[in-house]
Amino acid sequence: MSLDLILADLLLPLPTGEARQQQLSCLLKTAILSGRLPAGMRLPGSRQLAGDFRMARNGVLYAYQQLIAEGFLTADRGGTRVASLPLAASKALPAFPEHGVLSRRAGQLGAAHIGEALLPFAPGVADLNAFPWQAWARCLQAAWRMVSARHLAYAPTGGEPALRRSVASFLAARRGVNCTPEQVFIVPGGQVALDACARLLADPGDLVWLEQPCYQTARNAMLAAGLRVQHVAVDHDGMAPAPALWQSCPPRLIYLTPAHQYPTGSVLSLARRLDFLNRLSPGEHWLIEDDYDSEFNHARAGSRPLPAMQGLHPDAPVIYTGTFSKLLYPGLRIAYLVVPRWAVPAFGEALASLYRGGQAVEQRALAQFLDSGRLTRHVREMAGVYRTRQQVLREALHSHFGPAVKITGGQAGLHLTLYLPDAPPDEHIVEAAAGQGIAVRALSRYFPDGGGDNGLVLGYGMADAAHIPALVERLARAVRGI
Amino acid sequence: MSLDLILADLLLPLPTGEARQQQLSCLLKTAILSGRLPAGMRLPGSRQLAGDFRMARNGVLYAYQQLIAEGFLTADRGGTRVASLPLAASKALPAFPEHGVLSRRAGQLGAAHIGEALLPFAPGVADLNAFPWQAWARCLQAAWRMVSARHLAYAPTGGEPALRRSVASFLAARRGVNCTPEQVFIVPGGQVALDACARLLADPGDLVWLEQPCYQTARNAMLAAGLRVQHVAVDHDGMAPAPALWQSCPPRLIYLTPAHQYPTGSVLSLARRLDFLNRLSPGEHWLIEDDYDSEFNHARAGSRPLPAMQGLHPDAPVIYTGTFSKLLYPGLRIAYLVVPRWAVPAFGEALASLYRGGQAVEQRALAQFLDSGRLTRHVREMAGVYRTRQQVLREALHSHFGPAVKITGGQAGLHLTLYLPDAPPDEHIVEAAAGQGIAVRALSRYFPDGGGDNGLVLGYGMADAAHIPALVERLARAVRGI
Repeated sequence: MSLDLILADLLLPLPTGEARQQQLSCLLKTAILSGRLPAGMRLPGSRQLAGDFRMARNGVLYAYQQLIAEGFLTADRGGTRVASLPLAASKALPAFPEHGVLSRRAGQLGAAHIGEALLPFAPGVADLNAFPWQAWARCLQAAWRMVSARHLAYAPTGGEPALRRSVASFLAARRGVNCTPEQVFIVPGGQVALDACARLLADPGDLVWLEQPCYQTARNAMLAAGLRVQHVAVDHDGMAPAPALWQSCPPRLIYLTPAHQYPTGSVLSLARRLDFLNRLSPGEHWLIEDDYDSEFNHARAGSRPLPAMQGLHPDAPVIYTGTFSKLLYPGLRIAYLVVPRWAVPAFGEALASLYRGGQAVEQRALAQFLDSGRLTRHVREMAGVYRTRQQVLREALHSHFGPAVKITGGQAGLHLTLYLPDAPPDEHIVEAAAGQGIAVRALSRYFPDGGGDNGLVLGYGMADAAHIPALVERLARAVRGI
Repeated sequence: MSLDLILADLLLPLPTGEARQQQLSCLLKTAILSGRLPAGMRLPGSRQLAGDFRMARNGVLYAYQQLIAEGFLTADRGGTRVASLPLAASKALPAFPEHGVLSRRAGQLGAAHIGEALLPFAPGVADLNAFPWQAWARCLQAAWRMVSARHLAYAPTGGEPALRRSVASFLAARRGVNCTPEQVFIVPGGQVALDACARLLADPGDLVWLEQPCYQTARNAMLAAGLRVQHVAVDHDGMAPAPALWQSCPPRLIYLTPAHQYPTGSVLSLARRLDFLNRLSPGEHWLIEDDYDSEFNHARAGSRPLPAMQGLHPDAPVIYTGTFSKLLYPGLRIAYLVVPRWAVPAFGEALASLYRGGQAVEQRALAQFLDSGRLTRHVREMAGVYRTRQQVLREALHSHFGPAVKITGGQAGLHLTLYLPDAPPDEHIVEAAAGQGIAVRALSRYFPDGGGDNGLVLGYGMADAAHIPALVERLARAVRGI
């Protein structure tokens, strides 16, 4: 193709925002890459090309220089020439595979629930409207006022010392966790915490025990780390492994939600907690205690949530983890890991190899917010609100789905689980409810191997008690309409 | 042991901040867990215990209730008894292994450089003092003023739409990246970007080609994902694989830093870029183009950095990644991935399974900061500053280490690499320099298999030109003193 044809666009009015020299450079590049300008071909001198296409000579010079710098053109005494480049021989693009472009493990991951966080009954979200924004904004502003370059560079791994201290005290007071600030590692979100555990504590092919039904995000972290999964059924007292399973399928990792099993809400009994702790050997096993939402306890007005397993035996190979997503707001992305004191040096070093710290300003604001007691006060205020919401939801469910319907999970947290063995498949209910602007989750989806219970998981964190009865009625109507 | 002895502390003055009932509950728990109070033992009635230990009866009742709820005690008509629990038979704690408590892959990770970011010559940090803080703070404040519950819940995976649009335009204008906003995925930091690629694009045991010498953080992400590593030597034109290597060691993943190889600073030639692109097959290979610091280009005043490989063939299986750590500040933790359009659905879904979005306020502030042109102006202003610093550093190195000393990496970025084949081992130099408050990196450390060059990597992002000559003199003295 002749150069005149290739550069014909230069004679057209310039597209807005573009400079003539950029246009020239782009046309030449495209022509070279497509093979329309052959290697070794000599380009006209800048004066001639500028004259032919009515542009400034400097623009041509600039474009040539840029293309020489990028390797598309070469310059010698003979002038400017098209470089010799390994071009694909008009390689036709293959039809791109729609599936199978990612890794096999990516294909195993369970789908996430996106964009429904603010709909009624979406689990896992606390009441964002009730959060003391002004107090939090003041802490943030104060932290920004104190900012220096140190806080904006990479933060020390493990987090800001002030926050590690505050979290250690907060967890001791509220959750019976027994640790020093050095045992606390701050990470950007609960998923990063699980990712780090899966990779730093286990190798590809190692076995992890997961609760059945289980928290999908934890399962995804384990699968993404290349671990093999053994599902262990959960009953009223939490995960219930047969003693023989310890020999037949010895776990490298055990993932538990002891305070409020996700999604059934059962509480791991003390006897089982001690049994797990007795069987663990450092160097052989690790147990991850995910305390994702137990701060909100409803067993009895004024009662404390059941203390963490970690506090029963602080030297056991247990990593306690939790997040501020529910106590503050999900977008904050600050979570923590508490590791046994004997593992602190090795774990700290390995974690630093994986993640550089950041968010020092937010971390310092959060330390201030915790130390001022404002968060504890908020949690205490909300406990009553959530207790009421749960009760209203429970009554509404009984009144619309029958007085005998099975409901679990009321001792703690922000969701209830409703069992509907005789209703249409829960996946269909979820779809019908979504059509009504209601975001429930299908219980059967938490059994990745199938064969699970049919039912719904309903979050009441964001649901106003005054609206709950009407919403449940709408939900029941949707079920009947299937 | 008698109950009186176990509870004797109740007669002592109360430790500050503790309540008598908490003390009672704690003493009982410890005694039960250690087996000092046998299963089935009946505890005295609340009235009697309260009288014996001079405490309020309600306190005893509360402690009993709490321990019943936690499962340490049982209550029936016969009174309150110690529960029967699976206690370890006075199991002596094993001597905890100092090493080997983590996974094998954790043991392979290279150590991070912590706490040195603000020392002179620490690589990888831009000038935090020169950053337009006030303009950035205004964007943040404006974003906080516009905040609603939606922005504080989990953000949509992929990031705030406004930021995805801004990043797509910014990368098109500055880096020649060819993409739509939907191809841009925002993630919390460059390491999360690499973690996601390693796990979503490759399986445990798959082969990844890494540059030799290489960026340790990328290597750590690959090893943590369970991949096998093939190091491929880098020359003046970037990674140089022998053609036979494609058959003998076919890569699933190739990790490149084409614009400014880390740490040598070489620029991947156009011929090699095209050769890589020609050999890649979607579904078979993936190439990660890490554009970690190429925004700062020094080849020629006013010149643009070499455009991204991605723009040469936007439909190739290339994932382009970069971060705002160097353009804004490291603690911000906002990075991005640009995925080929045919992989967007699968990649987006898999990424959502791994990470929930957050930081919507910061993301909206950043979009505003980009759209206003303030960041581009800052980059332009700093280009001259960094060029000067590099020149001063280069001259100082020549004057103290000899006019013939080899220095590479000046075309872009924020560091130079100094080769010292005849000097003492670079690890010793690093130690001696640290004693002088100077944070250089040992070049040999970037060759994980050993056998690499002896030398130093020197960052000049934070180094004031006026101080550089004295700092280099101090460094040279430290070398002579070894």
